[in-house]
Amino acid sequence: MLQDAYAIHIGAGRRPLAGGRVPRPVIEIIEREDGTINGAPAEQYLLGPDEWQAHDHRAVARVRGRALDIGTGGGRIALALQESGVQVTGLDTSPGAIAVARRRGVRDTVTATVDEHARGDRRYDTFLLLGNNLGLLEGHHRAAGFLDALAEMAAPGAQVIAQGTDPYGTTDPLHVGYHDLNRSRGRLGGQLRLRLRYRELTTDWFDYLFCSVDELRELVAGTRWRLTDVDDADRPYYLATLTLEA
Amino acid sequence: MLQDAYAIHIGAGRRPLAGGRVPRPVIEIIEREDGTINGAPAEQYLLGPDEWQAHDHRAVARVRGRALDIGTGGGRIALALQESGVQVTGLDTSPGAIAVARRRGVRDTVTATVDEHARGDRRYDTFLLLGNNLGLLEGHHRAAGFLDALAEMAAPGAQVIAQGTDPYGTTDPLHVGYHDLNRSRGRLGGQLRLRLRYRELTTDWFDYLFCSVDELRELVAGTRWRLTDVDDADRPYYLATLTLEA
Repeated sequence: MLQDAYAIHIGAGRRPLAGGRVPRPVIEIIEREDGTINGAPAEQYLLGPDEWQAHDHRAVARVRGRALDIGTGGGRIALALQESGVQVTGLDTSPGAIAVARRRGVRDTVTATVDEHARGDRRYDTFLLLGNNLGLLEGHHRAAGFLDALAEMAAPGAQVIAQGTDPYGTTDPLHVGYHDLNRSRGRLGGQLRLRLRYRELTTDWFDYLFCSVDELRELVAGTRWRLTDVDDADRPYYLATLTLEA
Repeated sequence: MLQDAYAIHIGAGRRPLAGGRVPRPVIEIIEREDGTINGAPAEQYLLGPDEWQAHDHRAVARVRGRALDIGTGGGRIALALQESGVQVTGLDTSPGAIAVARRRGVRDTVTATVDEHARGDRRYDTFLLLGNNLGLLEGHHRAAGFLDALAEMAAPGAQVIAQGTDPYGTTDPLHVGYHDLNRSRGRLGGQLRLRLRYRELTTDWFDYLFCSVDELRELVAGTRWRLTDVDDADRPYYLATLTLEA
């Protein structure tokens, strides 16, 4: 999907074309287990700093030391950091995403999960979970393990800058009902069970977490990380900073 | 979907909001029977003439007499015709689409299929099938019946202005393979079997035809209509003009 979006973006290469001629918008389809379906333009993964949301800029301003951009996608964040002289690694599980990030100029990339990458000996001062990638905490079953993997790769004093979305401001019955269903099953309200689709491709179902800051605080408790700052100027979006305990 | 897209468009009313706060893009999801899935921004149904494709303008310039805009959607074509003094009726099977068209100012609307509407006594000089709505011919099983319904509502000398897409310029194996599958089943290559999805809503499966001009000519043969002009300046899109036989 990102390869197609990038080809459309630069206007060259193999692209989805209506009738073999006219470029089509590349849309990421997000399907929730209850049949709810939505789309989002894939171009969001390729935006330059001029088009970012304000909280992306504030996140990048918080980076210090060596950075790991987790779920780098098309590399928009990694590229900007690299250009400002930060030593940054772009990590993604998708070889296609990494191919796009590299074509755009991201020099240091890894195709792996955080657990796989944590088995290596690379150490980082800042872990970035932008573009809603706080969602990678998934839920109670995964958050501690995910944060442990980051701690294994953490230099002393390391921080996590994570962008989340508080889903509970909605009054939409479709979403409120799903949050209630989740809680009745012992899941967090915003613990979405999703799969992504594009053309003939479909991912497996996976959990992706939209949570409140209070829920995040509970998930972080008992790990080696401490929630030391929350920037919620762009609600429902927020930037959470976690700091490694000494 | 169109009601949501309109609320986003005008920035007022009940709208899909991320976290109850931030407007989300409204995307129409198009699922093909083989599992291929794509999205398209719903805003296309609300575009003003400044944002239309060139062939829409050329189609509108061909209108004469009383017009029936078939599949009027958000009423973008009907509204422009009405404003230029044409006596136009907007027809759609979707009550939500008609609600949006009326809110935008389309005065004469009908919520019905063409077959239902043909049972009435309204007569038209121009039938418009824009926004790919030549696709409503569906295939061999439906084209003659559909065109007969239009003929029943046709004033002497009436015309159909239909915008189609020739799907056969593609070399994309996903589409070429589907065209081949279709032909092996006795269907036209571009006789797409689709359903539309938005949030929790899903239509039934239906046929929607992308065909070449030659295929169209065969579908029209034996009906009361004659293919009298083809404007393919914007290939793969084309405007076909059918004229009622005297």
